[in-house]
Amino acid sequence: MGFEPLEVEEGRALFVCTPAEYHYNPIGAVHGGLACTLLDSAMGCAVHTMLPAGVGYTTVELKVSFLRPITLKTGRLLCEGTIIHLGSRIATAEARLLDTSGKLYGHATTTCMILRNLAPEQSKPSVGERG
Amino acid sequence: MGFEPLEVEEGRALFVCTPAEYHYNPIGAVHGGLACTLLDSAMGCAVHTMLPAGVGYTTVELKVSFLRPITLKTGRLLCEGTIIHLGSRIATAEARLLDTSGKLYGHATTTCMILRNLAPEQSKPSVGERG
Amino acid sequence: MGFEPLEVEEGRALFVCTPAEYHYNPIGAVHGGLACTLLDSAMGCAVHTMLPAGVGYTTVELKVSFLRPITLKTGRLLCEGTIIHLGSRIATAEARLLDTSGKLYGHATTTCMILRNLAPEQSKPSVGERG
Amino acid sequence: MGFEPLEVEEGRALFVCTPAEYHYNPIGAVHGGLACTLLDSAMGCAVHTMLPAGVGYTTVELKVSFLRPITLKTGRLLCEGTIIHLGSRIATAEARLLDTSGKLYGHATTTCMILRNLAPEQSKPSVGERG
Repeated sequence: MGFEPLEVEEGRALFVCTPAEYHYNPIGAVHGGLACTLLDSAMGCAVHTMLPAGVGYTTVELKVSFLRPITLKTGRLLCEGTIIHLGSRIATAEARLLDTSGKLYGHATTTCMILRNLAPEQSKPSVGERG
Repeated sequence: MGFEPLEVEEGRALFVCTPAEYHYNPIGAVHGGLACTLLDSAMGCAVHTMLPAGVGYTTVELKVSFLRPITLKTGRLLCEGTIIHLGSRIATAEARLLDTSGKLYGHATTTCMILRNLAPEQSKPSVGERG
Repeated sequence: MGFEPLEVEEGRALFVCTPAEYHYNPIGAVHGGLACTLLDSAMGCAVHTMLPAGVGYTTVELKVSFLRPITLKTGRLLCEGTIIHLGSRIATAEARLLDTSGKLYGHATTTCMILRNLAPEQSKPSVGERG
Repeated sequence: MGFEPLEVEEGRALFVCTPAEYHYNPIGAVHGGLACTLLDSAMGCAVHTMLPAGVGYTTVELKVSFLRPITLKTGRLLCEGTIIHLGSRIATAEARLLDTSGKLYGHATTTCMILRNLAPEQSKPSVGERG
């Protein structure tokens, strides 16, 4: 999809993405799926930073609010995910999607399930647990 | 993203998509953004079928539940969106994401805002209103 | 709050409630919290019907859509909860809130976490697990 | 329901509530509907503070995450709602529910529709618009 993490620290992840032609709908605006994908990735990554080795997670649900249309003119998008709650079985996180001037395009919250006692090969792909 | 509407009727839209390599995370499962995109598209399209000419909509929010990981083995996905409520200013819809055996992979609900009194050139791009 | 289950069967629960003065806001409409409470109860109960003895659940999140104001004139409300998915760790359900003429006032979805291996005294209070 | 606003300023509202016996489920924990009601009230009030005279709102949807059970031992609850986005037709807000030690019990987001050009008698009951 053409995005990548810019900064990752404990409980927080910042992704960047510059919308491109191939993110477009037939009509000329970026598909809402791009915002979902960025917000989901940033929140999942923020949760992941809180987990010790051998512990994974899977995203159970997310809710996304769309505030403004995203177009090619929007330019580079910053998507910052932050942990809200880390429990033994459930974690929640939130994320905001902004342009480089700080204008807000969308925001989201998510629920992740913590997967403890994973086999070694399962514990690595935390972000990909669900896909 | 490689998906398209298969059936569209009043209040209902069915999209199909076969997950491909390029929908993958680095780890080997399909990114959750694909499910979001399909569910969003099917719900938006279901809402769109209820609107007369000159009336558009924009998606305000959606919530997605992820039930199972999607992989290349999942094969063809069917995503059916259905209108729940059409008011004068707000519409809501729901959608389910299944494989061809009927196994459920995810489901969603959405809120759309109805945009009346659009200029002629604005009324066309209903699905793309938001992107 | 003045509501009770009318019918409960596997995967489905129907609650009824007649809004009263004490459900009102200062301004003269029923507080949205009543709809939330009914929808939450019906969905939790629908999940509960699917669980064997000794297995409990707790509600992780719910999302509620409000379609119309509820007033004293609305009369008796029916709230039907239905299971969508029952997994080993997560269940999802949905509910709709209608008047006796079938008019829809709200709808909701929820995510519940399944609590297995409960001690005997913990397994009873399924609905009250969370409160 | 036994709760009231403690502080209200532009874009923010703080409600307090001490759970009581009558908020209980049959089983001995406070019903999730109480958290929903508090979170809904704080978010709606935060939106309301941003609106000029003659402009109302109605809550379209809310999503609530439940993190911990609330009991009589929890004591006084603080619920702080904050505006996220105020557009011409849609506003979004978030809220958190904490005890007096700062422990988080739940959080929520909401979408409200802004109602402009209300008749004078309609513009007053903003919070009660929906109920």
